[in-house]
Amino acid sequence: MGREDEMYIRHSRQDYTWEGVERMPYKEEGLAPFKAIARQILFSDQDFECELRYFEMAADGFSTLERHAHAHAVIILRGEGHCLIGDTVRQVGIFDLVRIPAWTWHQFRATRGEPLGFLCMVNARRDKPQLPNEEEFAAMTNDTVLAAFFKGTLIT
Amino acid sequence: MGREDEMYIRHSRQDYTWEGVERMPYKEEGLAPFKAIARQILFSDQDFECELRYFEMAADGFSTLERHAHAHAVIILRGEGHCLIGDTVRQVGIFDLVRIPAWTWHQFRATRGEPLGFLCMVNARRDKPQLPNEEEFAAMTNDTVLAAFFKGTLIT
Repeated sequence: MGREDEMYIRHSRQDYTWEGVERMPYKEEGLAPFKAIARQILFSDQDFECELRYFEMAADGFSTLERHAHAHAVIILRGEGHCLIGDTVRQVGIFDLVRIPAWTWHQFRATRGEPLGFLCMVNARRDKPQLPNEEEFAAMTNDTVLAAFFKGTLIT
Repeated sequence: MGREDEMYIRHSRQDYTWEGVERMPYKEEGLAPFKAIARQILFSDQDFECELRYFEMAADGFSTLERHAHAHAVIILRGEGHCLIGDTVRQVGIFDLVRIPAWTWHQFRATRGEPLGFLCMVNARRDKPQLPNEEEFAAMTNDTVLAAFFKGTLIT
């Protein structure tokens, strides 16, 4: 593959990885809770005011429970699972569109015994995520569905 | 589905359409050449500095041959086909990433007897496309591969 081809096309390896795209850690370890999730940056440069990333968690993996001023635009590419948005847990499956509005708590979980992967479009310039404090997390776990979601014992 | 659900999730109908997303004409008829292609706007609002759209052409359909200052970030979601980028025709298939740089001639064609569908991320603020003039188009068709691509007789 020539340099020009690399610039224009990155072929899918058909296993949710791409030629020339690095499979990276989701975040720096220790900064926030997460499990079995990887990040690939598909488009991120000065030509675009947004970035397009692909996140994938293994079965039982989860993203960080967090919120921030910037919004997320998500399309599921692989598998099924659940996501928490605000105070409600929802099922998601292939090609579903998920909008995470500003300052809305959110977390994705691969609850179906299979990987869950999604594309996420996000503004290139954005603020840092906030984690829930103990009080906020305790309030969320008062809801039995949310409590089961966080424990990984949600059955639906 | 409640109003809150509509705001957060648009479920895929598993046929490359989505709840609450209108399947629209690609462009206004007569403005530029194209064939058998539809547009769905998945995310486009003030929360994002880019838009995410889904374009799908039926077998033998094609997008407009054009160029512009803004770049496109594409990921194929359905089928196989070919795209022209600059002066080269390339095969594309599911999940391949395609970058269309600024001022680069480009066109997608469903050359495989099946639909070709792709997500396209683009800056929300962007310039209008330019079409090739007769001289520019004639120069392109001097290339036998490009000529076959435009005629829809490309065999690879």
